[in-house]
Amino acid sequence: MTGNTFGKIFRVTTFGESHQEAIGVVIDGIPAGIELDLEKIKEDLERRKPGKSPLTSPREEEDEIEVLSGIFQGKTTGSPIAIIVRNKAFDSKPYEERKLKPRPGHADLAYWLKYGFYDYRGGGRASGRETLARVIAGSIAKQLLAFKGIEILSHTLQIGKVRIEKQPSFDEIRENSRNNEVGCADPKKAKEMEKEILKAKAENDSVGGIIEVIALNVPPGLGEPVFDKLDANLAKALMSIPAVKAVEIGSGFKLAEMKGSETNDQFYIAEDGKIKTYTNHAGGILGGISTGMPIIARLAIKPTSSIGKEQFTVNLKNFTQEKISITGKHDPCIVPRVLVVAEAMMAITLLDHLLLVEGFEKWKERIN
Amino acid sequence: MTGNTFGKIFRVTTFGESHQEAIGVVIDGIPAGIELDLEKIKEDLERRKPGKSPLTSPREEEDEIEVLSGIFQGKTTGSPIAIIVRNKAFDSKPYEERKLKPRPGHADLAYWLKYGFYDYRGGGRASGRETLARVIAGSIAKQLLAFKGIEILSHTLQIGKVRIEKQPSFDEIRENSRNNEVGCADPKKAKEMEKEILKAKAENDSVGGIIEVIALNVPPGLGEPVFDKLDANLAKALMSIPAVKAVEIGSGFKLAEMKGSETNDQFYIAEDGKIKTYTNHAGGILGGISTGMPIIARLAIKPTSSIGKEQFTVNLKNFTQEKISITGKHDPCIVPRVLVVAEAMMAITLLDHLLLVEGFEKWKERIN
Amino acid sequence: MTGNTFGKIFRVTTFGESHQEAIGVVIDGIPAGIELDLEKIKEDLERRKPGKSPLTSPREEEDEIEVLSGIFQGKTTGSPIAIIVRNKAFDSKPYEERKLKPRPGHADLAYWLKYGFYDYRGGGRASGRETLARVIAGSIAKQLLAFKGIEILSHTLQIGKVRIEKQPSFDEIRENSRNNEVGCADPKKAKEMEKEILKAKAENDSVGGIIEVIALNVPPGLGEPVFDKLDANLAKALMSIPAVKAVEIGSGFKLAEMKGSETNDQFYIAEDGKIKTYTNHAGGILGGISTGMPIIARLAIKPTSSIGKEQFTVNLKNFTQEKISITGKHDPCIVPRVLVVAEAMMAITLLDHLLLVEGFEKWKERIN
Amino acid sequence: MTGNTFGKIFRVTTFGESHQEAIGVVIDGIPAGIELDLEKIKEDLERRKPGKSPLTSPREEEDEIEVLSGIFQGKTTGSPIAIIVRNKAFDSKPYEERKLKPRPGHADLAYWLKYGFYDYRGGGRASGRETLARVIAGSIAKQLLAFKGIEILSHTLQIGKVRIEKQPSFDEIRENSRNNEVGCADPKKAKEMEKEILKAKAENDSVGGIIEVIALNVPPGLGEPVFDKLDANLAKALMSIPAVKAVEIGSGFKLAEMKGSETNDQFYIAEDGKIKTYTNHAGGILGGISTGMPIIARLAIKPTSSIGKEQFTVNLKNFTQEKISITGKHDPCIVPRVLVVAEAMMAITLLDHLLLVEGFEKWKERIN
Repeated sequence: MTGNTFGKIFRVTTFGESHQEAIGVVIDGIPAGIELDLEKIKEDLERRKPGKSPLTSPREEEDEIEVLSGIFQGKTTGSPIAIIVRNKAFDSKPYEERKLKPRPGHADLAYWLKYGFYDYRGGGRASGRETLARVIAGSIAKQLLAFKGIEILSHTLQIGKVRIEKQPSFDEIRENSRNNEVGCADPKKAKEMEKEILKAKAENDSVGGIIEVIALNVPPGLGEPVFDKLDANLAKALMSIPAVKAVEIGSGFKLAEMKGSETNDQFYIAEDGKIKTYTNHAGGILGGISTGMPIIARLAIKPTSSIGKEQFTVNLKNFTQEKISITGKHDPCIVPRVLVVAEAMMAITLLDHLLLVEGFEKWKERIN
Repeated sequence: MTGNTFGKIFRVTTFGESHQEAIGVVIDGIPAGIELDLEKIKEDLERRKPGKSPLTSPREEEDEIEVLSGIFQGKTTGSPIAIIVRNKAFDSKPYEERKLKPRPGHADLAYWLKYGFYDYRGGGRASGRETLARVIAGSIAKQLLAFKGIEILSHTLQIGKVRIEKQPSFDEIRENSRNNEVGCADPKKAKEMEKEILKAKAENDSVGGIIEVIALNVPPGLGEPVFDKLDANLAKALMSIPAVKAVEIGSGFKLAEMKGSETNDQFYIAEDGKIKTYTNHAGGILGGISTGMPIIARLAIKPTSSIGKEQFTVNLKNFTQEKISITGKHDPCIVPRVLVVAEAMMAITLLDHLLLVEGFEKWKERIN
Repeated sequence: MTGNTFGKIFRVTTFGESHQEAIGVVIDGIPAGIELDLEKIKEDLERRKPGKSPLTSPREEEDEIEVLSGIFQGKTTGSPIAIIVRNKAFDSKPYEERKLKPRPGHADLAYWLKYGFYDYRGGGRASGRETLARVIAGSIAKQLLAFKGIEILSHTLQIGKVRIEKQPSFDEIRENSRNNEVGCADPKKAKEMEKEILKAKAENDSVGGIIEVIALNVPPGLGEPVFDKLDANLAKALMSIPAVKAVEIGSGFKLAEMKGSETNDQFYIAEDGKIKTYTNHAGGILGGISTGMPIIARLAIKPTSSIGKEQFTVNLKNFTQEKISITGKHDPCIVPRVLVVAEAMMAITLLDHLLLVEGFEKWKERIN
Repeated sequence: MTGNTFGKIFRVTTFGESHQEAIGVVIDGIPAGIELDLEKIKEDLERRKPGKSPLTSPREEEDEIEVLSGIFQGKTTGSPIAIIVRNKAFDSKPYEERKLKPRPGHADLAYWLKYGFYDYRGGGRASGRETLARVIAGSIAKQLLAFKGIEILSHTLQIGKVRIEKQPSFDEIRENSRNNEVGCADPKKAKEMEKEILKAKAENDSVGGIIEVIALNVPPGLGEPVFDKLDANLAKALMSIPAVKAVEIGSGFKLAEMKGSETNDQFYIAEDGKIKTYTNHAGGILGGISTGMPIIARLAIKPTSSIGKEQFTVNLKNFTQEKISITGKHDPCIVPRVLVVAEAMMAITLLDHLLLVEGFEKWKERIN
């Protein structure tokens, strides 16, 4: 009913359902005069796109962006940027049978309980297609952060039961994670992950996974205690992504079984004169405030809810238990497609905090 | 600088530093005419209190609440409730040497980078003492939720390397978790956890852990897609607690290695006529909206940053590396004390969402 | 840079500049299942439209609305409603000379100082065309309020030096104010007002005026002390309309010279059993809260800034004083066109407050 | 129920009722390291205080401030500042008869309708005593603005039927307006105003008035189109003050009868090289953004609602019409006491906008 805006100063509002006219985003809080490269938005949308390989859904979505406002002669005007992507024509028929049978694991039932109905054709706002709007906003946020030297990386740690054994370096992530379909920085593990997905697909089943998002060169001082801490807002941002059920910062759950003498990141003076820590169990955030060390977040993604296997549901008219198997095209694993969405949410969160601390004036000085 | 308020309608603002006059809270968005039991606030504060046993810090904090506004003849007036707890006199001397040496794992350095100084006497806003204010607000929120039949539970799953083997029932949690110092629902494991803490203490070290917070009888329909999802706001609420570094909803990280056919919670009609699910991997939340099933969240708490063991730090004046060992009184494990804080943050989040959906009028009808 | 959203729960975000692709609005916080009549939106846009008579600008704007999301089979889905209106092709040439010469009375200079540039082609976000988006949102808000029996009226009190002599009844406003070009409830005065406008036009000059907006049947209890008072939020809403420079509630400035014994609205029990007041100097709001009496607000609109007469400006490149006369098409008086915009802002404000008090649940009960 | 916080970044939350423990304020969003002079807060409170002369209420309020947090060694810490003022002991008895008889013009009835009860002892949150908290926050805001060279002035234009004839210069306001009891910059008119008040007092009646608040040296660029315009937020801030029923910016309502050629403020280059305007009908704000010219706002204050004269009310138990005359001590005119409150609300609004544009970093640079 309300809740479609994220951010305090850099404010992202998304709208649109999968089976209506368009998906769109309005981005408010943009410094004026910044040059934007629309090609980068398209590249990011390409990374989110399904149907690129046997590993993903074979639906063909062509996501053409249409800029409605906020950019003049290639530069931001300081006014809200609105961008939409039209939905393609679709056939409602195949969805008819889902009308009264909410799909297990999906938001159908929850929407029905809250709104009195649910969009049986494709999930409405709960559709993964909504993340299109996030990716557009995130791509713009990443370009603004890049002005300040901030870089966002992401890669896949685990798919199903296949997990990388060694944490890759930032360079390995940069070089390798985009060279395979699963976004893994370890090429050998990537192959195993692909097999894991194909196996699930063959069984009419699905798998989930774990991904990591990293921000480098984040200035110290971002995060507003005691509730708008940087990690608190990152947790919200990342947990709001469909299918994400867990978020950890730095060493996260592992910290529970370690000793304080191990988990405290001890200080030294680095060659560049900055205070750094030998380890980074804190994931770059102390007391809710960035320290200048890399920001590190990991998120767990549940297996795709749409599966061909038969499951129990209830008929909302008769109020009887029935069975359902989700036919049609669906990804056996969405994990690789979530990478760019997670980058987007991290970028949006960081930029919102950065603008709060730096103000808009500083940007103006830079661009003239 | 800004960020000390949580919530959209039920709005909790905390203030106060550990070594100044008082810690306090202002709670806005309270329905009028509700009877409040101040004794319950005191009970909750008692649960947060250190120094109750050898397992916790021997400091003596007496936390007397003083109600400044918002309650008249035992009932809420609809005006903001302000409550403060005075800090006791303290001696600044023992802290002198920390003035230029930020403690590893603590917020000292981050505050120094952000604000240009840090409160070397006790952490300022980053002090665990700030959670006093959260507990007060949470205790009030729990009383309001109780009117609607909603119950909040919490218990300890793990301390250091000791973890319970079997998920306890809600009844076991209710009965057992308050009978031991560590908040564990398994009495035998509780003993082991206590030993784990004492061992760390003997080594001048500290341990962390994992706790679980549960909300029962939450009505379906709470949570506002796509950014103010219930799980997203819970993640923010819980991650904003000092020392928390990870949050998961339902089966969380475990979902990553399961199949969709296992993780989808399948539907049936319960005896009371409600739609329920056989399993609850979703933790009571689908598409960001409560379904009526129990809400379940788990959080990882890092080991106490204050340890006696010698660690590296930097001198902020000379900019040279030095050593520091934290003397004075400190908890070797704060996990059990976080339980009531986590309950508070969950209660505050739920009430905020409930008021948005139900409005204030409904409460009025109830109380007249 | 940021500030394009109004409302706390019923949230209206507008975007778009006059000389770019489109003007649009995203409306979040809509109860689900409400039937909407798009024809009423078109009627309201017609009332805002320039060029209907010699009294207004002869530009031809065709404002076709395009619904992008949030409405399914004629009913709200509870998801954000996005609606856009495309801008027509335009010729940038005639605007070239304004590029460096900000127009007196316009926002040009302020935008240049804030953003480092201004949209010399048509005012960008400061263009009156932005109010299109407000009218769309307002029209939807009025339909939702009508469900609750709330009615919004508006009429013109004064144009230039012509002012009505007697406050019209609500019936007179309903019947007469839409029967003339100036929105005046007194047909004779309406004629004089028209002449006042034509006279200004003949002199290459412009006139302003005063209008009144009224809300009937507003339930008591709307408004949240002490800052989100109903009158405070109405003042913000109405003052945010372009060209509005003053807002008063009830008897407003007149109260300054009256006695307390005259201005206090004394109570009686009306025939319907409700408590009413003999007079309504308070404009239906006491202590920032609606009382059930009619809500009354008046606003002053400055004369159109675009005039043919020669004025002093400065050349922003040379930093020398120069002269400018605004050629092209422009309204000698925009007062009548502001009526529907003021209705919109009042409706949006009231609905936001109503949803806060009543919650979304109540709406659901109504529609099933 | 909710609404006791003002501002987006510089956030002021007030709490407390007139007849409970204390009135207080929490101020969040304060840059760290700024030296504050508590004496200036006391001076401002003195200006708000009743009972200084026969013109005001003879009640004796001693308003001692108690700083609870946020200031360390005289400087801001960046943490929220909490300050309270205790209420003195009072005798509830004289108020007993008001219990069921809401006072005309007061918020009593509106609170009863909204909250189900009202504080018959002194108005609760609707009491003028709440403005104490605003004055404290405003006094701090003025000190922060003064760092940036911004000055806030105020003076009385009209009391009852006595109005100054000529707009005083800023110097005259600075020199004269604090030399008389009514805050008027014209000493002769001040005397007449005093008589007007005494006359009303003698008649058991009350009078209102009009005041002006001015901000000098405000940098251009403050204000966020299209809803968080500077004038829109000022209108909200000023209209939220008890008893204020109208707000105008610049020439306000007068603009309605002027021509565009008169009201457009024409540009010239001033000696200091800045762009200025010959006139200032816009009150320093164009398109919702400050231009660098003086910000000017005027507000109408209704006559004090508490009067000795007999008035009609209703008995809320019997639901019959009855009579009431307000005995006890009350101001026949509160206008002069509102001056410092209006200054406070303007300062809070400006600082909130300034921090948004400049960020917190700039402040830090200044203070180190």
